[in-house]
Parts: sequence; structure tokens; C-alpha cells
Amino acid sequence: MIPRYTRPEMASIWEPLTRFKIWFEIEAHAADAQAEIGVIPKSAAAAIWAGGKEAEFDVARIDEIEREVKHDVIAFLTHLAEFVGPESRFVHQGMTSSDVLDTCFNVQLVRAADLLIADLDKVLAALKKRAFEHKLTPTIGRSHGIHAEPVTFGLKMAYAYAEFSRARARMVTAREEVATCAISGSVGTFAHIDPRVEEHVATSMGLKLEPISTQVIPRDRAAMYFATLAVVASSVERLAIEFRHLQRTEVLEAEEYFSEGQKGSSSMPHKRNPVLTENLTGLARMVRAYVTPALENVVLWHERDISHSSAERMLAPDATVTLDFMLNRLAGVIDKLLVYPENMQGNLDRLGGLIHSQRLLTALTQKGCSREESYRLVQRNAMPVWRGEGDFQTLLKNDVDVKKYMSDAEIAEQFDLGYHFKHVDTIFQRVFGES
Amino acid sequence: MIPRYTRPEMASIWEPLTRFKIWFEIEAHAADAQAEIGVIPKSAAAAIWAGGKEAEFDVARIDEIEREVKHDVIAFLTHLAEFVGPESRFVHQGMTSSDVLDTCFNVQLVRAADLLIADLDKVLAALKKRAFEHKLTPTIGRSHGIHAEPVTFGLKMAYAYAEFSRARARMVTAREEVATCAISGSVGTFAHIDPRVEEHVATSMGLKLEPISTQVIPRDRAAMYFATLAVVASSVERLAIEFRHLQRTEVLEAEEYFSEGQKGSSSMPHKRNPVLTENLTGLARMVRAYVTPALENVVLWHERDISHSSAERMLAPDATVTLDFMLNRLAGVIDKLLVYPENMQGNLDRLGGLIHSQRLLTALTQKGCSREESYRLVQRNAMPVWRGEGDFQTLLKNDVDVKKYMSDAEIAEQFDLGYHFKHVDTIFQRVFGES
Amino acid sequence: MIPRYTRPEMASIWEPLTRFKIWFEIEAHAADAQAEIGVIPKSAAAAIWAGGKEAEFDVARIDEIEREVKHDVIAFLTHLAEFVGPESRFVHQGMTSSDVLDTCFNVQLVRAADLLIADLDKVLAALKKRAFEHKLTPTIGRSHGIHAEPVTFGLKMAYAYAEFSRARARMVTAREEVATCAISGSVGTFAHIDPRVEEHVATSMGLKLEPISTQVIPRDRAAMYFATLAVVASSVERLAIEFRHLQRTEVLEAEEYFSEGQKGSSSMPHKRNPVLTENLTGLARMVRAYVTPALENVVLWHERDISHSSAERMLAPDATVTLDFMLNRLAGVIDKLLVYPENMQGNLDRLGGLIHSQRLLTALTQKGCSREESYRLVQRNAMPVWRGEGDFQTLLKNDVDVKKYMSDAEIAEQFDLGYHFKHVDTIFQRVFGES
Amino acid sequence: MIPRYTRPEMASIWEPLTRFKIWFEIEAHAADAQAEIGVIPKSAAAAIWAGGKEAEFDVARIDEIEREVKHDVIAFLTHLAEFVGPESRFVHQGMTSSDVLDTCFNVQLVRAADLLIADLDKVLAALKKRAFEHKLTPTIGRSHGIHAEPVTFGLKMAYAYAEFSRARARMVTAREEVATCAISGSVGTFAHIDPRVEEHVATSMGLKLEPISTQVIPRDRAAMYFATLAVVASSVERLAIEFRHLQRTEVLEAEEYFSEGQKGSSSMPHKRNPVLTENLTGLARMVRAYVTPALENVVLWHERDISHSSAERMLAPDATVTLDFMLNRLAGVIDKLLVYPENMQGNLDRLGGLIHSQRLLTALTQKGCSREESYRLVQRNAMPVWRGEGDFQTLLKNDVDVKKYMSDAEIAEQFDLGYHFKHVDTIFQRVFGES
Repeated sequence: MIPRYTRPEMASIWEPLTRFKIWFEIEAHAADAQAEIGVIPKSAAAAIWAGGKEAEFDVARIDEIEREVKHDVIAFLTHLAEFVGPESRFVHQGMTSSDVLDTCFNVQLVRAADLLIADLDKVLAALKKRAFEHKLTPTIGRSHGIHAEPVTFGLKMAYAYAEFSRARARMVTAREEVATCAISGSVGTFAHIDPRVEEHVATSMGLKLEPISTQVIPRDRAAMYFATLAVVASSVERLAIEFRHLQRTEVLEAEEYFSEGQKGSSSMPHKRNPVLTENLTGLARMVRAYVTPALENVVLWHERDISHSSAERMLAPDATVTLDFMLNRLAGVIDKLLVYPENMQGNLDRLGGLIHSQRLLTALTQKGCSREESYRLVQRNAMPVWRGEGDFQTLLKNDVDVKKYMSDAEIAEQFDLGYHFKHVDTIFQRVFGES
Repeated sequence: MIPRYTRPEMASIWEPLTRFKIWFEIEAHAADAQAEIGVIPKSAAAAIWAGGKEAEFDVARIDEIEREVKHDVIAFLTHLAEFVGPESRFVHQGMTSSDVLDTCFNVQLVRAADLLIADLDKVLAALKKRAFEHKLTPTIGRSHGIHAEPVTFGLKMAYAYAEFSRARARMVTAREEVATCAISGSVGTFAHIDPRVEEHVATSMGLKLEPISTQVIPRDRAAMYFATLAVVASSVERLAIEFRHLQRTEVLEAEEYFSEGQKGSSSMPHKRNPVLTENLTGLARMVRAYVTPALENVVLWHERDISHSSAERMLAPDATVTLDFMLNRLAGVIDKLLVYPENMQGNLDRLGGLIHSQRLLTALTQKGCSREESYRLVQRNAMPVWRGEGDFQTLLKNDVDVKKYMSDAEIAEQFDLGYHFKHVDTIFQRVFGES
Repeated sequence: MIPRYTRPEMASIWEPLTRFKIWFEIEAHAADAQAEIGVIPKSAAAAIWAGGKEAEFDVARIDEIEREVKHDVIAFLTHLAEFVGPESRFVHQGMTSSDVLDTCFNVQLVRAADLLIADLDKVLAALKKRAFEHKLTPTIGRSHGIHAEPVTFGLKMAYAYAEFSRARARMVTAREEVATCAISGSVGTFAHIDPRVEEHVATSMGLKLEPISTQVIPRDRAAMYFATLAVVASSVERLAIEFRHLQRTEVLEAEEYFSEGQKGSSSMPHKRNPVLTENLTGLARMVRAYVTPALENVVLWHERDISHSSAERMLAPDATVTLDFMLNRLAGVIDKLLVYPENMQGNLDRLGGLIHSQRLLTALTQKGCSREESYRLVQRNAMPVWRGEGDFQTLLKNDVDVKKYMSDAEIAEQFDLGYHFKHVDTIFQRVFGES
Repeated sequence: MIPRYTRPEMASIWEPLTRFKIWFEIEAHAADAQAEIGVIPKSAAAAIWAGGKEAEFDVARIDEIEREVKHDVIAFLTHLAEFVGPESRFVHQGMTSSDVLDTCFNVQLVRAADLLIADLDKVLAALKKRAFEHKLTPTIGRSHGIHAEPVTFGLKMAYAYAEFSRARARMVTAREEVATCAISGSVGTFAHIDPRVEEHVATSMGLKLEPISTQVIPRDRAAMYFATLAVVASSVERLAIEFRHLQRTEVLEAEEYFSEGQKGSSSMPHKRNPVLTENLTGLARMVRAYVTPALENVVLWHERDISHSSAERMLAPDATVTLDFMLNRLAGVIDKLLVYPENMQGNLDRLGGLIHSQRLLTALTQKGCSREESYRLVQRNAMPVWRGEGDFQTLLKNDVDVKKYMSDAEIAEQFDLGYHFKHVDTIFQRVFGES
């Protein structure tokens, strides 16, 4: 979590003060329930809310207490008592630290998920806009980095839209995974605290009950959450790599927006480098890296140990903040991407018509030529074109064996670009629900 | 995928012959659709089914062809033609290799998911059986590996049941993720093949349509799938570690079943080692390891490249076969686990009553003692017990400050084990829907 | 890099100001060389040193310029010019940003390695002290978590000493890997800068020449460095897990030092939890996590891209700061570890002599009993002991088949603990060079 | 380890029979030493060699025994006894399974390292050949995928040569890491076996002593080994990506060799896809994936557990076999790479001279123009060229502000390609020790 790659809204979720405020809410809601069922006086619950609701917790003071008692929740409760007064003895009754820590962690993950879902909506909106804008802008499709057949730039945006729609759905699922609350006391038996307290806190905080918590909220939930983030980050990288390729000097079909005043290179002033998408590539590596520790965190000893804590203190902010930054940066890149249809056309024309070879192959087959023979005929005319020794259409028209199956007009017909785009509407309809 | 850790049913999904049979099905269903819409003769579709349905594909022969043409799908089609005869020229028309390869891969992943879901059902059944069997068998709950408060062995099984229920739900979601079909031709534009063909193949094979495929089925789907497997494997490891701990010499609350004839150690014949769960621990590391390459596979170049292929040839069988083996082994370990309630009781009694300190703390607070003071009183009586210098209950009864708040009877009451289990039914109800 | 797990000395290596100071040094040494070979005036080099050596660089000001020009090195050079004046036009001549960035990064990695090596020396010193202190303190050796045969606590410290000696040697190698300097200009051809400049900067800064740099210092070096950190972190985790096991309630052979005032649990005041080593376990997961992005960073496009940069900005500080913290914490844990020889003896005695079964097996074999038969005899006497139905030595003396091979005295001899420690000196000599 | 990506020589290292032969050697050498120091009869040692040296071990038979006794080493020893006869009771005396297993594992890793080092020599030879062949073949250097300044194709091969030289050195170090032998008996105390046995076995098998082994050879060694393999695999990927980029349709500066009969695409016969290097990209992901489980294997419990075993059975063959395959495939790709100097020249000429902007910048500065002003002048002439609106040299000659500093002749001088290659010899000398 370094300033350069951090947006304030996501960062604030992970700030100590936010954590303390959530802790307070959990404790205060629990006190309400305890009062309701008669374990503590109703006046105590009221006093807790009164003292804590508007309290300006002093992070430095809590840190100072923690350095002495070496226990974060006790440090907080001690500080809280300074606001609440003697009634503070009713706070946290029957609870254990993990009740507070783990429920708070889930609240933070839920809030982070909400931001990430909003980020994905920005990415989706940008993709949709560019997809419709370039729905029929022809460009070459490439497999293995080699020219294959024509697609449209809109289709490239549409594949990404479909992928980020899945990303969004996955984030919604991931959010559900972690939206649980546990207030079950030591080793999770509810021996010291009535399950109704958990129910009240869960409801009050918009969470579901953790069915069984063994003190710790089981970390398979968080593991699934961070794994999901990594899949999303990999989808970001896929699109970032697409843009980096399109910006290569020899390709130059699209370019990241280059602001006035920006300098591309300290030594080569003409250069416009795809630094934003290169940056996204690197950050994707980081978000992926956090999956394995999150998976290892699942394996706690017995009812719980605390080994996950240090790892989570690092990876939870780092993963969410980084992905949040990535999605926002990506949305901006898409939105402002400079698209060069004329260069796309130039590249399409580069191979002297070879990109239509598949059509020829099919046409020959349909004319009764065996698949093997069609392949041979197409390939023997394709190879000279590849070597720059002629134009594909002309060569085919001069090939006596091809002529056995197809007239010149029939050959020419295979070179119509529009042929490739006849199902773009169908695909758009599937992806966007409109076309 | 090594024999020792491989079950035949899962392995067979990944055998070449299975792959070729799926390829054939895809091609033959596609031919049906092509015939239906009039692209190829209906007799051709019939001939394809007639020739291929019962064909005994010769894997060695296909390999031989592939060594020459260096292309697996062409090799297969060439071999298929040997069964189908001249009508084989109508096979694969308008399609591209990825249509066959990627749809087949998804079929394999779906089948693997079905097996894994069935495996999880075995694990769940075994857990439920042992949970109800030991619903009220007292045992010590441990946090940080240190005695905390009593739980029951049934609760340990119940936490695992809840976790594996989530695992099952995740596998169902993962299965959905990959249950798609793409028959969209080169670069995915349907230029050479009608979308109705894809619809027919999808329906026939129990798959959904891939909304947009750019020739390749996007690998974020597979990434999510393998990430899910890793989360499940980590849950296996968590339970494996639990059992390994319980079998430690000093703990010995449970033991893996030890068959007659089995030798525990080449040099120490008395030893019974938790080798099955140690094995699961190691295998979990492997299933986790396959996540990162699956994530990296998402990032293909442009409409597609083939870099994912080599990685998937290795990781897809390895991950599914290994997890399948793990879940079956785990189900067996749970089912046959030797459980020692008397040792559990012995360990419970070990700390001279200290495990009840939390109750005392609460009781003191409820009697009006401040939380800080209660903590101090409990701790000063706990420490001598910890050092083996007395029994907790006796010491408390002799502590003049404690006496100010509680009578001897009230102190004794805090040592009742049953107190801890009053909500076991509630928890079972939540987890199993019955108690 | 969060405050809680950060030591200031390591953190300061990664502060912006440190980076700018190193950048200045590189530029100024380069200017010296350029002046020496006559490319720039000697007075310019002198002016650069004069202006920059004591300059108090203003990080906020540089950030502000960077926000405008979107280029960190240009921002720095612009700021530097504010100190150096018009002669600043001679700074950076013929160089490219990567010359400064990559050489600086290596300087930082070297400094970090130096701190880590010093940390390892602390760990080694603590281990050696405890090893000799407990050279002959008997304790049970465990395989699979099951009692095996006696070792000494000193031997446990000695294995760790050997492992951390290897860790130290690896860190020295890793330091060598990254101790290189590249000043080769755009795409690394030295077209605009004489190789003698690189030689001078390298020598001045205690680095070796990068033989060929293609503008970027190849990242296989950094990958090897961070992989090494992860191996070291895993060794830390191994020892941390050892201590966590030893502190388990049922084992309690050693305990982390527990300071006055420290509270172990908010609810169970008697508990002393191994929180420091649990913390190390979690942090080890993080240091391991940084390996894969560092490996992915190797794969830059062509002469270079900048994708590694964002990943390194995060992982380089995080990995080095975290490992530095871990090693210091570990040294403290070892140094102050509470060791309980009496509990070790208690555990040794637990199995009624079964831990001597291997000796019996060997003795029987040496007396002419077949290995198979010996195994059977030992096992049939071991099993009742395991079930708590007798003492091993007594049972053996009563076994008529055993009596055929060994007298009572010979049997008794096999139970001598000292027998196991006769080679402790040999091992210490190997590990420490003294015994 | 799948046939397609497996070379027989490496695979044979991991075959059961190889393992059993190494086990036999360890046992037989140990017997020699035991006989020498008088623990067993010399005739027994002789009988062991006589019976086992030429024995044709029956893997299926050993497997069958193992299924019964569930212990691999006991199964082997039982089978060995069938060859050796009654003297077999002297085999394995005082040893433990790990002595055999771990020393054998290290022997296998050493042999694998030897093959990998030989593979690297092939890669280095191919690189050197192509480097000298194209030492002065001009091609454009690219940063961020954007044209930067000229390099030579030989320099590209030279950077790779330097990187693979480091890879080789790292493999030599990794081999050293694992070339150890442990014959120390249960829990590694030498209680039952004299250290001289270990010394003899080590010497006989070309290994060093493991200074202290706690029964298991510590896995930090293997972790370092597999981490090294992953760094090497990442270097393979870097070069594979370079070739994939060079083969892109728009770039086409080099191409993988395309054999007669090979079919590039089932539908587009003209296509020549970089499938070999795409394959290497995917396999690199796998070799990287094995690092984390190898790191996790370091963390064994106490003197040992067996969790590493299952992971190693999978990852050790997979990692070594895959990297061996990769290096051989890479050597072939390099050796037979089709290089197109004319296309390189074409690409060099593409940007209308813009690649010389850095030279202009420097030249202006040297003529007394401030760095800021020079940058501005170069950039304002570069931008029109970038937009295809003119030739860089012409524009500069027409720029009145540039003319203030440089004559037409001086401007023209900056466009000389040879200028960039004046230090190629220096670099070759550094990399190859010759030029």
C-alpha cells in the first residue's frame, strides 16, 4: 500500500480509526442485545453508546496502551473506558477478541468489495461506450500474434465487457462469502454469550450469521475472496497486455492518452510509452501474489491460532487497495484511449489478402474439393504471398486447380470484409443485451 | 498425476481416448446442426455419426499423424476420416481447432467437478456421522495451541462440516463457471459458421453458450475453477492438521486407523504415525501451486495464443486428480478415525481447572467487580496453578478478595462442564439443519 | 510495509530521500567520469558535487514536479538543477533513466542484504548460545509428531544453527547477484556514453559492472535475490513452528518470554500464547508470496519494459522490511526463550520406555535374531505399553522369545539415555567448529 | 510429467527402478563401512553386494509388498532379501528410512542438475553461434514495445548468453546445495550408527556430509534448488517472449523454423505460429509454480514429518523434466531460428529517423543548448514525424532554433547508424571473453 498506487476511499477502510469505529459499533450493538436479554443493565448499553458514538478515539493513545499490554483489543477497551466511564465494565462481556476482530475484518472486506464493484461498473461503462463507438471498426484479429481474420475493435471491447461482467458477478459472490458475523465467545461455544447477541449484531451490521465459528471466522471465506481478486486482476492484465500490444510501434492501432506536459522518456522525446498499462501488468502480479498466503491462512491450528493476523494486516489492504487502483486506472485508460482506425485498416491490408485464406478453404470444400486438397491449394498460393511474391487473389485466379472449382467472381467474393461482421449484432446482443 | 495419488475414474477423464471421444461428439453434433441449416448434406451428418460413434480410435495412430503434421486436431480429423470415409470432408466445416479443444476442456472440467462434488458428499457424510456420534464428547478447545475452554469433539466435526458445505457450494459455482461451449470459428466472429451450430452443440452437451469467445474460451473461467480447487484443498489441509495435532504423542485424542500388517517405522515398531494426513498436507501444497499458472493463463495475447495449453495439459489433470484423491482419502480418515474420549477427558483435567478462568472472570464482573480488578484477581490465582502450585478452585476459595464477591458454592458452580455445551444444539441446528 | 512490522533502519533504505541521495551519487560520479574523459567540463562535475552533496532534497517538491511531467527521474533532475544551477545541463548526459533507477535499486538491495546478513548473525549468536547451554539437556526427538528417540535441546538449536548458516551463505550469494552497476544509455549500447563512465561509477559505489544491460539490469538477478529471501523466511517459519509446538499445553517444553504487564487473552488470563512465533509464521507466508511476482518480472519485453517497476515498488520494501523484522524477532525469541528441562524429562518418560524400541530391535538383530523376527518381537511388546498396559522393559524381560537372545542385564542396558548422546560432540564439532 | 514434454534421460532419473538401484548402492556402501568398523561381518557386506549389484529388482513385486506393509523402504528391503539371502539381516542396520530416502533424493537432484547444466551448455552454444553470426546485424532496440535506438541482433543474443551464463552458475550452486548425504539414524543422533558410515557412503557416492540431519535432510536445500530452477525457467520465458514478439506479423524479424509437413492452423494454412515459444511460455509458468510447495516443505515438524514426501513425488520430477524439456526446445529454437535482416532494416527505417532523437538531444546540449530547451526542440520536430507529417532530418534542418546550434552537416551526422555499434566489441568481450 504505497501512496502512488492508493486511492483514499479504499485506504480509509484500512485506517486504524476506521477499525476502532467498527469495533465500537460491534461492542455497542452487542451491549444492546445483552441489555435486551437482561445480562447487563439497559442503562449500561445506553451509556456505552452515549460515551462512544461520537468519541474521537485517539489512535496514538491506543497504540501506547497496546505497547504495554501487548493486546490490541484490550488496549482499545481500556481507551474506550476513558469515554464511557464505569459502565464500561459491561462492554465486551462474554465476548472474546476474535468476535470483534473477525467481524470487523469482514465488515472491512465487505466495504472493500462494494468499492471494487463500483470500480468494475466504471470499467464496464467505459468498455460499453467504446464497444458501441467502434462496433464496426474493422481491425485484424490475431492468434499467436499472427494475423488471422478480421474482427472489429468493438468486438475487442465486447470480449472485455463480458469478462468484466463475470468479474463483477464474482465480486458479488466474494462479498457474500465474507459478509458474516461471529459473536460466539471463547472457542465459539456461546458458553458465555447468548446466540441472540450474535443475531442482533449481525442484523444491525448487515451481516449474516457465521453458522459455527470456533472463535475464529473460518479463513476459507477470506481465501475465496482474495482468490477472486486475483482472477479479476488477471483479467485487468489481459486487457492491459492487449493495449500494450496495440501501442507497439509496428502496430499502433491504439494509444494511451498522453497528457500535455507529460514526458515519455528522459532521452527520446518522441516516445509515447504505454506506461499505464505496463503499470497495470506489474500490479496484477502483486494482486495474484496475495492468494497463496490467503490460502495458507486457512490452515489454523485447532480452534484458532493467530498466524493469519500478520499476513492479513499486510495483504488485505495491499490487495484491495491495489485492485481498486488498477480498476480505476483501467477505466481511465479505456475511456481516453486513442483509437486509430486508419492504422487498423493499414494493418488489415498488410498481408495481401492472406487473411481470407480460411474463406477460400471453406469455399473450395463447399465446391466439392476434399478438405485435404483444398488445404493444399490454399497453402500453395498463400506461401508466395507470405514471402511478398504476389497478391493472394491474383494468384488464386491464376491457379488452374483452383479454377476447376471456382470462377474469378466466386474467388473475388471471398475477399469481402463485410462477410466477417454479419454476426456482430448477435454477439453484441448476447454481451450487452442490445446491439 | 502419479499412480500412487490417482483414482481411475478421475484419471480416465484426462486420458487421450476420452478426449478424442469428446472431440468426436462435438464434431458430430456440429455436423447435425450444419445439416439442419443446410450447410452440409444430412447424409453427411448421418455418415459422421455412423462412422465415428462406435469407432475405436487408435491413440497411437493419432500420435503418429500428429508427429508429422504437428497439429493435434488435424491429426484426429485425419484419423476420423479413416472411419467416416469421403463424407469426412464435411466434418469441422467452418470450425477452428479451439472450438473443439476448448469446449472439450470445459466438458472435462465439468466432469471433474461432478466427481469432486461427489467426493465432497462423502466427506460431508463422514463428518456428519462422526459429529452426531461425538456431539457431546467433551474435549478441550485450544487457541494458539494452548488450552482454552471445553468444546465437544462433535463441534470439531461440525465446523469442518460447515466448511466443506461451503466447499461444495463453491464447487457447484466453479462447475457453472466452466460449463460453456464455443463453436465460433476463427477469431470467434461466426464468419464461417452459424451461431445456431453453437447453440445446438451446447444444448446437446449440457453446456451454456459462451457469449463471446474470440476463438478461445476466456481463461478467467478456468482460473476461477482452479482457484476454487485450491481453497477446497486448503480446507482439507486444515482438517488434516487438526488430526495430526490430535495424534501427537502428548495429545493422543484421536488416531488414524492403522491396518493390520502396516508398519509405522522401519526402526521404531511402536510408532503409529499420522501418515495419511501428513500426505494430505503435502498434496494440499500442490493443489495450491496450480492456481498461479492458471491465473497467468488468463493473459493470452489478442484473440488468443496457445501458451495456456502446455500449462493446462499439466495442471488440469494434476489438480483435479490430486484433489479427488485427497477428498477420498480424507473421507476414509474421518470415517475410520479412532477417537479416544478418555484421553480427551485426561487432557481436559490437565490444567487443574484453569480452563474455567473465563467463567470466573465473567462471574466476578457480574458480581460488581470491575473488569480490570476481576482480571487481576483471576490472573493472580491462575498463575500458581499454571506453575503446578495448586488447584484453581481451592485457591480461589481461599482468596479473600474473591470471597468479597462470591461464595464457595458460587465459585464451584463455575467449574461445571455442562455449562459450556448448552448451545451445542443450536450450533448443530445451524450447521446440519437438525440436532 | 506496515509500522508494526517495520524496523527503521531497513525502512530508511526505501525512503524517497534515500533514493534521491543515491540517484545524486550516481549522477555525480558519472559526471566525474565524463569530466575525466573530456565530455563535460571538470568545473561542471565540481559544480554538481558542490550543489548536490549537501543539498536537502525536497521530496514534496519532486513529487509535485513528477505530477506534472509524469517522469520520476526528470522530476528529480529538475529539482537538482535548483541546487546546481546552469551547470546542471551537464548532469545525466548520455544516460537514460534506467541507468539511475536500476543501479540505485541494486544499491538498495545490497544495503538491505547487508542488514539481513547482520540480522542472521544475531540469530546465529542466539542459537549458538542456547545450543551450548543445552548441549546435553535431554528431550524427546519426534518424527511425525510422535515420540521417536532422545535428542538434546542443544541439538535442536544446532540444526537451526546449521540451517541459518546456510541462510547466511545464501544471502551473501544473493548480495553478490545484485551488486552490479549499469550506465549504458538507451538500449544499453553505450552509444551515447563511454563504458569508462560505468566503470568509474561501479568502482566508486562498490559494485561490479553489469556485462550487458539492454538499458535494464536484467531481473533474473532480483528474482534470485527475492527467492533467497523466501528460503530464509521458510527457515524462520520452521523454527517458529518448532517453538509453537514446544509451547503447546500438553508439551510445554519451552515458552516465549512473557513480559510483565502483557496480557495473553482478553478472556483467559492464565493463557500464555506463542504469539511472536505465530506472527513469524504469518509473515513467512508474505515473504514467500513475493517470489512469484519477482520471477514474473524477469520476463520484460525486448530491451525493456516498465512492468516490473510497480511490482518492485511494493515487493522490494515489503520483502526486505518483513524479513528484517522476522529475523530480529526470531533472535529475540531464541535469546529469551524459557526452556523447561524438567518438562522435557517428563515427556521423555511418558511412553514407559517405548522410545528405546529401536535399540532393542538392533540389539536383537545383533544377537542373531532375524530382522523380521526382531521387528515382530519388539512390536508385540510395544503394543501393550502403547495402550498403557505395562512397562516396556518389564514386558521384554518376561517375553520368552526375547529371553532366547538377551539377558535381563542386556535388556536393561538398552534403556540408558546417555547412549544416544555419544555423538553430540561430533555433531557440534561439525556445526560450530567446536564442541 | 507428461510424455509430450518429457525427455527420456531426465525421466529415467525418476523411475522406480533408478530409485531402487540408488537405495541399494546406499545400503551396500553402508554395509561396507559397517563391516570395516566391525559392526557386521565382512562376509555380510560382500554377500549384499554379490546379491544386489546385478539384481533385477522387480518394481511390481516391491509395489505389492508395499501395499501390504504400507512402507516403501521395508518393502524394498524385503525384496532385496530375496536376492541376498539370510545375510540380508545385516542390511540397513542402525539406519532409518530417511537415511536412504533423503540421500537418494539428493542423488537424483544432483543427476538432474547435471543434465540441466548440460542443457544450458547447449543453449549457450546456440546463443553464441547466433550472436557472432549477427554481431553487427542492425535491428531496432525497443523499450516499452516502442522503437528506441538501434542495436544489433547479436546483442540480443549476447544479453541472453549473459543471462544463461548466470543460469548455469546458479545451477552449479544449486547442485552443490543438494549434494549431501545423511546416514545418521533415527532423529539423526548417530546413536545406532557410527558417523564413519555416513562418511564412507558420502565419499563413495560423491556427496558431502550433511552436518546435522535430525533424520531428515533439511529441505531448505531443496527449496533453494527448486527456486533456482524457477529463475532459470523465467529466463527461458524472457527469451521465448522475445521470439514471439519478433515473429508477430507486423514485426517479422525472426521466425521459428517450420518443418515441411507441419500445419500451422487447421483453418488458415498461411499461418506460421510461434508455437514452440508459446509452449515454453506456458511451461515456465509450471516450473515457477513448484517453488511455493518446495518452500512450504521446509517447515517440517520437529525432527521431521513426512508431509514433504507427497509434494516432492510430484514436483521434483515435474520441475526437472519440464525444465530439461524447455532448455532443449529452446536450444533448438535458437539454433534453427530464421532471422530476417531485411525486415529488421525495414522496421528500423519505419519512423523516419525518429530513433535518432536521443543523439540530437545530446548534440544540442553539447552545443550549449540547455537540456530543457534541447528537449523542447527535439520534441517539437519529433511530433510531426510521429504523425507521419515529414522526415525528422529535414524538419530539423528547417528549424530556425535548431540551426542556431547545429549546421546541416552536423545534423546529418547524427543519423549515422554505425555510431550506435562502436561498443559492440566491448560488450562481446565482456560477455563472451572474445569479440
